[in-house]
Amino acid sequence: MKRAFDTEILSVGTELLLGHVTNTDARDISEMLSRIGINVKYHSVVGDNPARLRQCVEIAKSRADIIVTTGGLGPTCDDLTKQVLAECFGLRLVRDEDVVRSLYEYIDTGRGLTENTYQQAMLPEGCTVFPNSCGTAPGCAFEKDGKVVVMLPGPPKECRAMFERSALPYLRRLSGEVLVSHALNIFGIGESRVDDLFAKEMNAMINPSMAPYAKECDCLLQITAKAASEEEAEAMIAPVRAHVLEVLGDLVYGEDLECLEQAAMQALKERGMSFAACESCTGGDIARRFTELPGASAFFLGGAVTYVNAVKTELAGVPEALLEEKTAVSREVAQAMAEGIRARLGADLAVSVTGLAGPDGDGVHEVGTVFIALAAPERTWVRETHMGVNRTRSFIRRMAGNHAFDMMRRYLRGMDVE
Amino acid sequence: MKRAFDTEILSVGTELLLGHVTNTDARDISEMLSRIGINVKYHSVVGDNPARLRQCVEIAKSRADIIVTTGGLGPTCDDLTKQVLAECFGLRLVRDEDVVRSLYEYIDTGRGLTENTYQQAMLPEGCTVFPNSCGTAPGCAFEKDGKVVVMLPGPPKECRAMFERSALPYLRRLSGEVLVSHALNIFGIGESRVDDLFAKEMNAMINPSMAPYAKECDCLLQITAKAASEEEAEAMIAPVRAHVLEVLGDLVYGEDLECLEQAAMQALKERGMSFAACESCTGGDIARRFTELPGASAFFLGGAVTYVNAVKTELAGVPEALLEEKTAVSREVAQAMAEGIRARLGADLAVSVTGLAGPDGDGVHEVGTVFIALAAPERTWVRETHMGVNRTRSFIRRMAGNHAFDMMRRYLRGMDVE
Repeated sequence: MKRAFDTEILSVGTELLLGHVTNTDARDISEMLSRIGINVKYHSVVGDNPARLRQCVEIAKSRADIIVTTGGLGPTCDDLTKQVLAECFGLRLVRDEDVVRSLYEYIDTGRGLTENTYQQAMLPEGCTVFPNSCGTAPGCAFEKDGKVVVMLPGPPKECRAMFERSALPYLRRLSGEVLVSHALNIFGIGESRVDDLFAKEMNAMINPSMAPYAKECDCLLQITAKAASEEEAEAMIAPVRAHVLEVLGDLVYGEDLECLEQAAMQALKERGMSFAACESCTGGDIARRFTELPGASAFFLGGAVTYVNAVKTELAGVPEALLEEKTAVSREVAQAMAEGIRARLGADLAVSVTGLAGPDGDGVHEVGTVFIALAAPERTWVRETHMGVNRTRSFIRRMAGNHAFDMMRRYLRGMDVE
Repeated sequence: MKRAFDTEILSVGTELLLGHVTNTDARDISEMLSRIGINVKYHSVVGDNPARLRQCVEIAKSRADIIVTTGGLGPTCDDLTKQVLAECFGLRLVRDEDVVRSLYEYIDTGRGLTENTYQQAMLPEGCTVFPNSCGTAPGCAFEKDGKVVVMLPGPPKECRAMFERSALPYLRRLSGEVLVSHALNIFGIGESRVDDLFAKEMNAMINPSMAPYAKECDCLLQITAKAASEEEAEAMIAPVRAHVLEVLGDLVYGEDLECLEQAAMQALKERGMSFAACESCTGGDIARRFTELPGASAFFLGGAVTYVNAVKTELAGVPEALLEEKTAVSREVAQAMAEGIRARLGADLAVSVTGLAGPDGDGVHEVGTVFIALAAPERTWVRETHMGVNRTRSFIRRMAGNHAFDMMRRYLRGMDVE
């Protein structure tokens, strides 16, 4: 009989409920568990309150096979996770002399240990103790009533280190499966169109499975497979990936990337090329995004933020007459900006953006009208976009930047640019 | 009888359980609710699964007065929050024609709307609709069976904006008392120092109350008063504000602001002055941040992102000999960049940044060494900062920008700049 491994992560700490800290422990543990094929079905957070914690443990017992707690193991009076969990599973807390010794080594002040420091050495009888490599409070794990309980400290560094070193090997013994997941990054069509295209297949798929996710100005398709080994899981993913690539073609800009600028950087690296930028309505966001990537200086020379017309002329050499004739929000000015900055800085490529990010218009164009240009040695391309008057300023700016990086990646990989 | 407002935040999305994203929505909502005196007692997370979501809703109904959901409102087939919530409260979903109209405006492609886009206009009968200012899926709220239900979209920007604009006023109505809260924005000392300075008073205060909050590169003191009317609450806050201002002086850069660039813009407006920027390691982030503010074009002329040395010379006129003698990361080059761009663009003021944001060093300076300059008609000031080798790239860039905006605001308001 196959054993089930539905897991609940139960985080204990009033600071989480006040919003003073983010629950990164639950995210970290979920990510690491899903890699070894253990399904996290629930996260819950409760404050430092014994009655409410007890109720949450009872709920977790009723719906999960593995309960992972984080937080509430420290020496202060509001740290009550061990007491409550032991009680809920009918176990006594006993003093672990090895832990007492290591507490002495760690925080020996020459004056002995305080009463509440000793509390950290009180652990459920018969448990496996997890040493804390970055702090004092040890964690532990036990099996009882057909459930597995793992208790980890709250501070993210301690929690993560203990999970990786002690809890993961402990849990891996229980599972025979691995879970592998890849994201195909998509720009050019939205999440709901992707969903339309693959809805039938997705509904019929169980393992491997596939699901679309919207990001701010692009989206992704996540393909996940569960198998006995990593190789086997990868082999299950391969035909699904191939099918998606066949349907979507070059709308897929990468795999497991965070953003389009990473795809642009990869393509610049492959071709050994540099670029510059001349930005009006994006106001420096293209430069900022690319230079967030470590190693950007090998590909990005610099750029101009030409917010007013005179600066378009001064820094990028856009002719005053052209600005007067065509206005700043035009195909021609976008082209002149890209070509001007490319020549000025001696870059292989240059991108430019000019348009209306709102909230105010210019009386001529609608908010959301943006021209994006790419100047290359052989020619310049310009995309004209109308993103809609209801889009926010930050959406319009981010989307314009995505178009610029998309044009670069397409040019560098020999695809249609416009 | 005082009504209870125990709250559960229920987040829906398999991506949270896979650890692909962090539950920042729960953190943001918790923080904002605690400021208006509503207690969050539980967070829970469940995947895109109707049966498990239904169980979670039943648990939330049994232990909370207010249920706030996040996620699962989008157009794809795994978005099921509205259906399940409506079902659990015995409500039908009905089509909201106002929402259909706004969907048309938002994403009209000339081909009409797809079937799954329409789904977003299906809302629980009798609910209050919350428009989505950053996306398509609307949120909503209703009261039923003595419970209040609020449904918000999952993407953090959409969730936060809708919570602030629509959900917060909706929830505030429920409470008979008025809660007024003001944040004093602080730059130049950290949250823990602020905590030290006011710890005694804060511990003794109940209403009004005061609490420090750390932001990414600055901090704030939140003063909150609860009273029968807004005027009464404001009158309770006034002496506390006066005391804080007396202790902190010009370290307080504003009140209820989001960021330092807003303080800089206010000061530029008061003095009717313009500025330009020349950025090396911030890579356009100063220009990007300032131009995120609507109306930026009245004060910001433009700037240069001078990522490589040749561009510092080409766009900002920094002498090659100076770059060779002092290196790019120096007080002298920072000064030349600010003065160069100021003269070139004819701005009243100019700021510049040059330094090491990491992760790689230059073999001479430590990562975190950054020079920030402000050039004004009468002279130029330079700040030298050492942020520490353990800071992240994005922290160093943001902090450098904060220094630039702080120098501008101080100059414009006649305070010490260095």
